Amino acid sequence: MERRRVGILGATGMVGQRFIQLLHNHPWFEITWLAASDRSAGKAYGEACKWKLDTPLPAKIAAMTVQPNTPELCEGGLPIPKIIFAALGADIARGLEPKFAAAGCAVISNSSAFRMVKDVPLVVPEVNAGHLDLIETQAWRRESGGYIVTNPNCSAIGLVLALKPLEERFGIESMFVSTMQAVSGAGYPGVPSLDILGNVVPFIKNEEEKMQEEVGKLLGHVRGDHIEMLDAKVSAHCNRVPVEDGHTECVSVKFRKKATREEILAAWSEFAPLRGQHLPTAPEQPVEFDTAVDRPQPRLDRMRGNGMAATVGRLRECPLLDWKFVVLSHNTIRGAAGAALLNAEILARTGRLDKLGVPTGATQGQAVLA
Amino acid sequence: MERRRVGILGATGMVGQRFIQLLHNHPWFEITWLAASDRSAGKAYGEACKWKLDTPLPAKIAAMTVQPNTPELCEGGLPIPKIIFAALGADIARGLEPKFAAAGCAVISNSSAFRMVKDVPLVVPEVNAGHLDLIETQAWRRESGGYIVTNPNCSAIGLVLALKPLEERFGIESMFVSTMQAVSGAGYPGVPSLDILGNVVPFIKNEEEKMQEEVGKLLGHVRGDHIEMLDAKVSAHCNRVPVEDGHTECVSVKFRKKATREEILAAWSEFAPLRGQHLPTAPEQPVEFDTAVDRPQPRLDRMRGNGMAATVGRLRECPLLDWKFVVLSHNTIRGAAGAALLNAEILARTGRLDKLGVPTGATQGQAVLA
Amino acid sequence: MERRRVGILGATGMVGQRFIQLLHNHPWFEITWLAASDRSAGKAYGEACKWKLDTPLPAKIAAMTVQPNTPELCEGGLPIPKIIFAALGADIARGLEPKFAAAGCAVISNSSAFRMVKDVPLVVPEVNAGHLDLIETQAWRRESGGYIVTNPNCSAIGLVLALKPLEERFGIESMFVSTMQAVSGAGYPGVPSLDILGNVVPFIKNEEEKMQEEVGKLLGHVRGDHIEMLDAKVSAHCNRVPVEDGHTECVSVKFRKKATREEILAAWSEFAPLRGQHLPTAPEQPVEFDTAVDRPQPRLDRMRGNGMAATVGRLRECPLLDWKFVVLSHNTIRGAAGAALLNAEILARTGRLDKLGVPTGATQGQAVLA
Amino acid sequence: MERRRVGILGATGMVGQRFIQLLHNHPWFEITWLAASDRSAGKAYGEACKWKLDTPLPAKIAAMTVQPNTPELCEGGLPIPKIIFAALGADIARGLEPKFAAAGCAVISNSSAFRMVKDVPLVVPEVNAGHLDLIETQAWRRESGGYIVTNPNCSAIGLVLALKPLEERFGIESMFVSTMQAVSGAGYPGVPSLDILGNVVPFIKNEEEKMQEEVGKLLGHVRGDHIEMLDAKVSAHCNRVPVEDGHTECVSVKFRKKATREEILAAWSEFAPLRGQHLPTAPEQPVEFDTAVDRPQPRLDRMRGNGMAATVGRLRECPLLDWKFVVLSHNTIRGAAGAALLNAEILARTGRLDKLGVPTGATQGQAVLA
Repeated sequence: MERRRVGILGATGMVGQRFIQLLHNHPWFEITWLAASDRSAGKAYGEACKWKLDTPLPAKIAAMTVQPNTPELCEGGLPIPKIIFAALGADIARGLEPKFAAAGCAVISNSSAFRMVKDVPLVVPEVNAGHLDLIETQAWRRESGGYIVTNPNCSAIGLVLALKPLEERFGIESMFVSTMQAVSGAGYPGVPSLDILGNVVPFIKNEEEKMQEEVGKLLGHVRGDHIEMLDAKVSAHCNRVPVEDGHTECVSVKFRKKATREEILAAWSEFAPLRGQHLPTAPEQPVEFDTAVDRPQPRLDRMRGNGMAATVGRLRECPLLDWKFVVLSHNTIRGAAGAALLNAEILARTGRLDKLGVPTGATQGQAVLA
Repeated sequence: MERRRVGILGATGMVGQRFIQLLHNHPWFEITWLAASDRSAGKAYGEACKWKLDTPLPAKIAAMTVQPNTPELCEGGLPIPKIIFAALGADIARGLEPKFAAAGCAVISNSSAFRMVKDVPLVVPEVNAGHLDLIETQAWRRESGGYIVTNPNCSAIGLVLALKPLEERFGIESMFVSTMQAVSGAGYPGVPSLDILGNVVPFIKNEEEKMQEEVGKLLGHVRGDHIEMLDAKVSAHCNRVPVEDGHTECVSVKFRKKATREEILAAWSEFAPLRGQHLPTAPEQPVEFDTAVDRPQPRLDRMRGNGMAATVGRLRECPLLDWKFVVLSHNTIRGAAGAALLNAEILARTGRLDKLGVPTGATQGQAVLA
Repeated sequence: MERRRVGILGATGMVGQRFIQLLHNHPWFEITWLAASDRSAGKAYGEACKWKLDTPLPAKIAAMTVQPNTPELCEGGLPIPKIIFAALGADIARGLEPKFAAAGCAVISNSSAFRMVKDVPLVVPEVNAGHLDLIETQAWRRESGGYIVTNPNCSAIGLVLALKPLEERFGIESMFVSTMQAVSGAGYPGVPSLDILGNVVPFIKNEEEKMQEEVGKLLGHVRGDHIEMLDAKVSAHCNRVPVEDGHTECVSVKFRKKATREEILAAWSEFAPLRGQHLPTAPEQPVEFDTAVDRPQPRLDRMRGNGMAATVGRLRECPLLDWKFVVLSHNTIRGAAGAALLNAEILARTGRLDKLGVPTGATQGQAVLA
Repeated sequence: MERRRVGILGATGMVGQRFIQLLHNHPWFEITWLAASDRSAGKAYGEACKWKLDTPLPAKIAAMTVQPNTPELCEGGLPIPKIIFAALGADIARGLEPKFAAAGCAVISNSSAFRMVKDVPLVVPEVNAGHLDLIETQAWRRESGGYIVTNPNCSAIGLVLALKPLEERFGIESMFVSTMQAVSGAGYPGVPSLDILGNVVPFIKNEEEKMQEEVGKLLGHVRGDHIEMLDAKVSAHCNRVPVEDGHTECVSVKFRKKATREEILAAWSEFAPLRGQHLPTAPEQPVEFDTAVDRPQPRLDRMRGNGMAATVGRLRECPLLDWKFVVLSHNTIRGAAGAALLNAEILARTGRLDKLGVPTGATQGQAVLA
């Protein structure tokens, strides 16, 4: 089977590198286009990028020429792929991603720029694949076939994986979450070592706000042309700790319906919404419960399910709400590049990568982003 | 003025070392006796102890002979001091501390062994110095003049310092706290480096239980011969992080009475219950508020007030309870040796170190520990 | 092809765990026996062992019963495998390994106990596979077919891999090496976090001595029944740093023959002594040179060649000797379990695992260890 | 006694902050002027600076207005102090420091820009205070009374403190040094946490070159108008490790004259060249030997002598050269701000701060820097 051609926007950053790592030998997708800022464009990728991962940079990728960040024809007249993974900062994304969508591309974005916009789906496939229907309400879709799909903030993904099966069975009324987040979440150079060695920084700009609102949208429901947010109070405390990869989160939750320990464990272990879809990046078991008293731990558990599973542990009663537990997930795999890749796989599986570049006329919605 | 002679039980451990450091050149107390387990007894302290602090071990202390852990006359017939700082593990403390109390000593203990016992005061001088009256209900006090006084767990002290002024003015109804605790809290050798480098361990044995119950006693009120616990729900999540010293805690709190931001800041800044007592170890300002968005941080703030102040920051509204903030304090100074030392100072100031070794006959209470 | 049955002595420790990880799905070997100290014997492995690796403990292994540390028939009368990987501390190894050799086992040891003994080969297959001939001089070999083979200290392996191709072409006259070693080299619990967080410990017991003498034996030559040590001066400085895995070493070396930069790089890139042997654990390229100015680095390079390659970099002239460079290798894979496993593979390939348990009568040497 | 007014160039950086910390309550000097780049000039210091030290920013300093980086009259017509501590990057220093010297200031610089210039003294007061005579050969000195004095790189200072007493008694012929340097040496933001958490970076730009040449000048001798470099071969390996403060260095050294262990220890313990000068910042004992097998260690020993002493340990024979040992010093106190401050104190003590701002006509040398 021929692999679909894909491109990466923001290819030299930390998330861009993860895209390259995860797409290497991917059965469905093949990287044919890499773009980055003007500083890098025109150079060989191996020269433009300070590769920071512990698997080797594939030689083929190293030799590719970095293209400029525009949806126009690339050097040599090669067509730009219609499937674009975007690993851009929010400010840049705000300007660039719509251009690619308008050019007929499926922009599968890791940026926060459009996550909370009304007609943009914010999706974790195991949690709310149905939200992808919002695509059809995007003006670009009608005009060029293109669209933007987003995945949540790295700190929200592990959390909603753990919460979704509980929400389905017991309903969530309110929740605390206190995070201990890895430095890779801030990109490169990101957090200065002088700030974090032997230290904790109890602040990450906009992170608590993002978590609180994204959880509401992710666990919300499609109501015609928009998402009705989950009606639950969420209070987040976000902290940076000296960990390379893996966000650990302490959660207390109050349910609408009484739940026993056994029912909660069953909800997690039976949670397999993608089973049967055979998506290459989907973990066998999206939420793994560990029975040890001191797990999950980022260094030991972040790579479960090839970095795509969330690990939960320490389920116990909460004196204040109902139950408390700890959840952990890999912030640059499950929480960023892997999240977007899984979005691409569900888009492919549901036929939404087939009609790119051609006006669909299908949508009746308005261009929210215009 | 002649300094009172004091001894240290468990002198070679991490908290024992902090006692030595903090008592060096103390204006009121002089170390004349150091005891440790049989393995160390008989050796010079400098040889028995693997000194781990970054100030030099005082030469005079290094030359002292470590005594056995018993309240009998020490080597050479020197009398054992009547003021004993105890830095023992709970299991050892359970056996040894009562012997010293029975021998007429004021046992100023950092151990958890007797903290929750009915007639043993659990005290942070700024918070509940009045609880020291419980001493008079101890059987030892009547029989020998001796008694046991305890300070709380290292994770509870910073928290109650921040909460006390709020409890006084607004009343606390419920509270969520998630900690990020330093490795020194586990003593030496304590946490293996393989467990904590680049990692988080979301579990500390018994820590959540201790925090939850100790906060209740510390913020409770003397009712005759016992403490009536604070009627508030407390939910704690305790985590170990790769920080050497300083416990950082994320707190959400619900008050009984509405409080504005200004009122909370005023409560903290006006909190100075020990002013005028001139205790050498008491910080000028027990609770310092930092206005920066990303403070407090353990490496930068743990030494405020010579390691005795708690730093609060990030006061903001909580979507679930009323307010949230971060509090930080030094876990082996404010949270252990300094806490006990301040207890000794308030005991001295209130005359409770003057009648040791002689039966008082004063108590009508029962020996709870017998 | 049926896999050979193997056992692991010291199976619950850090190196024992690595053996289990590396032997999982090994094409030639199958774990059928796990032994550990009395504390663990009789328990299921999954219960006896605190698994510390970031890949899951295989379920089949978790269910195996830990056997006692003796070469007698194990529980249920199952025969003990004749191929024994030994991951024991030196003191225990000194007593146990000879018993297994005497029982006809090939003891493939990671311990330092017998490395410098005259008739025991100290082997890194790429460096001195010929030293395996020493096996035939061991008394056990003659009597039972059993023998002991060792691999070097974790700090010596990467170094000799880098040095061997240089020694072959230019001869080594003297050398300076300063190490920065990972905490996993000390096992578990090993280095206390209070000793190493934000710190360097410039001392590892016996490490400098081991490095200095082991390099001499590894680069030495078989002379009849013993090894003639390499005639070179070696000065080692060994340090522990806050790194989880991967030993980094700064090397200055003086050659007997002038060498250019190009010749050195060629020596490394052409070094492939095991090519054609198809050993499953042998890295394609045992010594990889990285051209970046700031490499190798433990976190980025330790997993090259599945953790079995040494990475060199920063080749530059030395103002004092001839050349200097940096070498890095994974200390618990290449430097311990992987080293022993590769020794087992070369033993298998050269027929030395075929005659176990039967007297060979072949040796004329003496029992050095008796 | 009235304190001399001093200014700080580059006041908001890490070294600038250390100057402020160390000059707080200094008996001889008082900060009356703070300058920084245009980005900060005009703001209150407390606002312009992200204070990163663990002692509080003095309120008086926080309120001072940051001045522009020029030697012209500052705001309000206040005269710029004639004593200027310069904490600038080399590129900026190259342009700015000469302007201040030309304006009659004593520029006491921590930058590398002019260290190796012929008529600029590179001084550690305990090591080569005599080199200060070079000042009189500077053209500025003759014309305005101003001059530039420098201190060495943070990695060279501890080393030359340890070497100087050995050089005096035994002569140094050659030397290896392998460093493990703290992240604070790179300033702020400096080393990204993603590069150094759980990692070692075996490269610091230009550091090996600086160490090698600066050691030669520091241990050299004044010959008329220049310094004759020490005739010794020095080979340096420089590494960055995850330590906040304190550079640890492994040294092997060959002497011109045989030295016993006792003679070396005596050379260190008797080394007190500043005794009797009563310089406020000079440590009682510039080189402290620690007898423990595993010392010095950065976290435990960097604050000896208030951060101004070098600690040596692990003295043992070297199989390649003569002796080896470990030396440690605080890189931003002894290695930067404290070094410059001690230079200022020796300049004051020797009358060289008295004739600033007036042409001396004394020098016959040429303006090397013009």
